[in-house]
Amino acid sequence: MANRSPFASKLGAFVALSDEEMTLLDRLHVRRKVFPAGRDMVHEGQKNPSAYILASGWVCSYKLLSGGTRQIVDFQIPGDFLGLRSVLFRTADHNIEPVTRVEASEVLATDLLETFSKTPRLATAVLWAASRDEAMVVEHLVGIGRRDAKERTAHFLLELGSRLKLVGLGSASGYACPLSQNLLADALGLSAVHVNRVLRELREEGLVTFQHGRVEIHDLDALVLLADFDQTYLDHDGPLLK
Amino acid sequence: MANRSPFASKLGAFVALSDEEMTLLDRLHVRRKVFPAGRDMVHEGQKNPSAYILASGWVCSYKLLSGGTRQIVDFQIPGDFLGLRSVLFRTADHNIEPVTRVEASEVLATDLLETFSKTPRLATAVLWAASRDEAMVVEHLVGIGRRDAKERTAHFLLELGSRLKLVGLGSASGYACPLSQNLLADALGLSAVHVNRVLRELREEGLVTFQHGRVEIHDLDALVLLADFDQTYLDHDGPLLK
Repeated sequence: MANRSPFASKLGAFVALSDEEMTLLDRLHVRRKVFPAGRDMVHEGQKNPSAYILASGWVCSYKLLSGGTRQIVDFQIPGDFLGLRSVLFRTADHNIEPVTRVEASEVLATDLLETFSKTPRLATAVLWAASRDEAMVVEHLVGIGRRDAKERTAHFLLELGSRLKLVGLGSASGYACPLSQNLLADALGLSAVHVNRVLRELREEGLVTFQHGRVEIHDLDALVLLADFDQTYLDHDGPLLK
Repeated sequence: MANRSPFASKLGAFVALSDEEMTLLDRLHVRRKVFPAGRDMVHEGQKNPSAYILASGWVCSYKLLSGGTRQIVDFQIPGDFLGLRSVLFRTADHNIEPVTRVEASEVLATDLLETFSKTPRLATAVLWAASRDEAMVVEHLVGIGRRDAKERTAHFLLELGSRLKLVGLGSASGYACPLSQNLLADALGLSAVHVNRVLRELREEGLVTFQHGRVEIHDLDALVLLADFDQTYLDHDGPLLK
């Protein structure tokens, strides 16, 4: 199983996948595409959009408001499913923009629904992955609604680390992170200047450094305490469906 | 099909359910329970919680922060599935509290997963319902992050109306609503005083009145314009799976 895709690794954390299920999953990966950074892969209002499974690179999902401001809902990393909701609704309700160069497999709505009908365990696994995504949006809502800027930023950096570790792209001590302070600001509901100040405070307190495209966590316990970070919602406890 | 539960009505909007699927769905409703207002049905951190299908009454899902503040993530109305995410994660990541007296069917994790394995179309329908819930949380995130108090409140009242209409509990002109201004405040990230002022403004401008447990929409078009409300994310366009 050394050649498992990040997506299969992630689903495998929830459902122990059989060889047959792995084969069906691999078939979803045939339409491999490359997208440059900065140009939307999916735009809000687009009819019958495809879904994508992210193989490499980072993207952000965001909504534009009529006044021109934007709110980043979440970032997606390798192994994440993009645009599932838009497929089920037949219309994209948000934009998806590559933060870096991205490789992704395009999944047509018909292929996805056909795969689900053949293997309900995969449908359940995707339901789990979607629930996990929802849990992250809930945390972002709670963060913007009730956490101060420092707690919110610390929580965000811990969450990213936990997600990257699950797909083998980071560890408890740090990870590569291509996000600019502007992107962080749009996700955290802060100004870029405020993000800069918060990151400096976190660094000066010896908790975490985010510089030169890398997050280094110096004091994990203290950071978890500051952010009130409980990773229950990211669940790594092993498959529920054997 | 006059006796369809609100849950079946809601799923039926996405998947045309066969008689066999309806029977399997009905079986999920056997453990009917009653809960009084104000006492948590599920609490954060609870292990192996059940899920519930709400038959009557309203509940709120919320998270408590270590400092004692709370953020309401969403309200659930008849036909909604409660605690799905907590079942899939084996640990509740939020609290569920009845706002009114509630009747709900308890669904055990094992029964739910078994039903999915028998009928992948139901799993897909539940995935759609979960995606719709996620879309609402996304809207709440965008609202708290980027909409002012009046737009946010207007958006919230329009969303509730649209949801209630889908399960036959309201119309474009109004609906019964048991929420207090304190509850609205905890959902909208505002103080109760602020909510009170915003509701008065909306009333004085002839847009919407929320009084005596009823929301009356006087000028739907103007309210939609103010809130920048696009109900794509609530999708009522008829079944994707025939």
